[in-house]
Amino acid sequence: MKVHVLRFGHRKKRDIRVTSHCALVARALGAERIIIDGDKDDKAEKTLKGVNERFGQGIKVEQKAWKKTLKEYKNKGWKIAHLTMYGETLAKAMPAVRKEKRILVFVGAEKVPGEVYKIADWNIGIGNQPHSEIAALAIFLHELFEGKELERKFPKAKVEIIPCQKGKNVRQLQKSKGKS
Amino acid sequence: MKVHVLRFGHRKKRDIRVTSHCALVARALGAERIIIDGDKDDKAEKTLKGVNERFGQGIKVEQKAWKKTLKEYKNKGWKIAHLTMYGETLAKAMPAVRKEKRILVFVGAEKVPGEVYKIADWNIGIGNQPHSEIAALAIFLHELFEGKELERKFPKAKVEIIPCQKGKNVRQLQKSKGKS
Repeated sequence: MKVHVLRFGHRKKRDIRVTSHCALVARALGAERIIIDGDKDDKAEKTLKGVNERFGQGIKVEQKAWKKTLKEYKNKGWKIAHLTMYGETLAKAMPAVRKEKRILVFVGAEKVPGEVYKIADWNIGIGNQPHSEIAALAIFLHELFEGKELERKFPKAKVEIIPCQKGKNVRQLQKSKGKS
Repeated sequence: MKVHVLRFGHRKKRDIRVTSHCALVARALGAERIIIDGDKDDKAEKTLKGVNERFGQGIKVEQKAWKKTLKEYKNKGWKIAHLTMYGETLAKAMPAVRKEKRILVFVGAEKVPGEVYKIADWNIGIGNQPHSEIAALAIFLHELFEGKELERKFPKAKVEIIPCQKGKNVRQLQKSKGKS
């Protein structure tokens, strides 16, 4: 399954860390691309470039307006899953979402235009309490990939973290060969 | 099961939104208390006070140093689960964690002292890629409560969001009676 993420309404001053966290989560949990809408700002892109170089190639970051993006994806036959506390339950929506092959996950901010609720194939609440778009994205991807996303390998990594009970075990990989 | 969260190393300038997101996630996904270590800052506490008043009483926020907190919880017999990308896998750790009755979840920042890895009963990686403490906390609580946390009801709410496929359905509750 192909998953891209559209991060709506990035505000340069206020959102830099939140948007970077969204992008890192998208990468770590199996999305292939994140499109950032809102203020022009390449900080998240730079952060992810560094992480991709060190921990393996995992996500592409681009900046594009949300309306144009939704239209393009719709025209190409992608399905849109909009994460919102007002949406139907995750348990109810997920079986249908899992049947699809290409999902664009729309991650909102405080005020998402009403139009998005109409365009979306699913409006999904990761619970119906206010919390965090980063958390909503994480739980959505975790459910979508059924936990397998946590074992994903990233090509061309320079280092690999080996899980361990105490301390840190960081394996240096050969730069020339990349990671198998 | 009782779950408290210890947010380590809050920096007033840099972390306000990240710490607030951690607190909102802790509340929405079933933790009863969040302790914030680091810079003195009552912004997250104010945010959560407002959310508790509107959406129902769900979490207590306090500020206390991490070392003192860990010691106190340890002495009272709580188990410590430290979320870190260097830790053992979630799948491996979770069966033992679920058997406990009182868990303090230690949510780190970039540089967590080595001491914490030793004090913790579990060091758990929500994957072994760098991402977000907010996402790590969300997935940990979601796995711990096995999805039931998303259906949790909050007492004394003024409004309740009713899940729906399109648009928003917000139910006003009687202030005097609170939420049943």
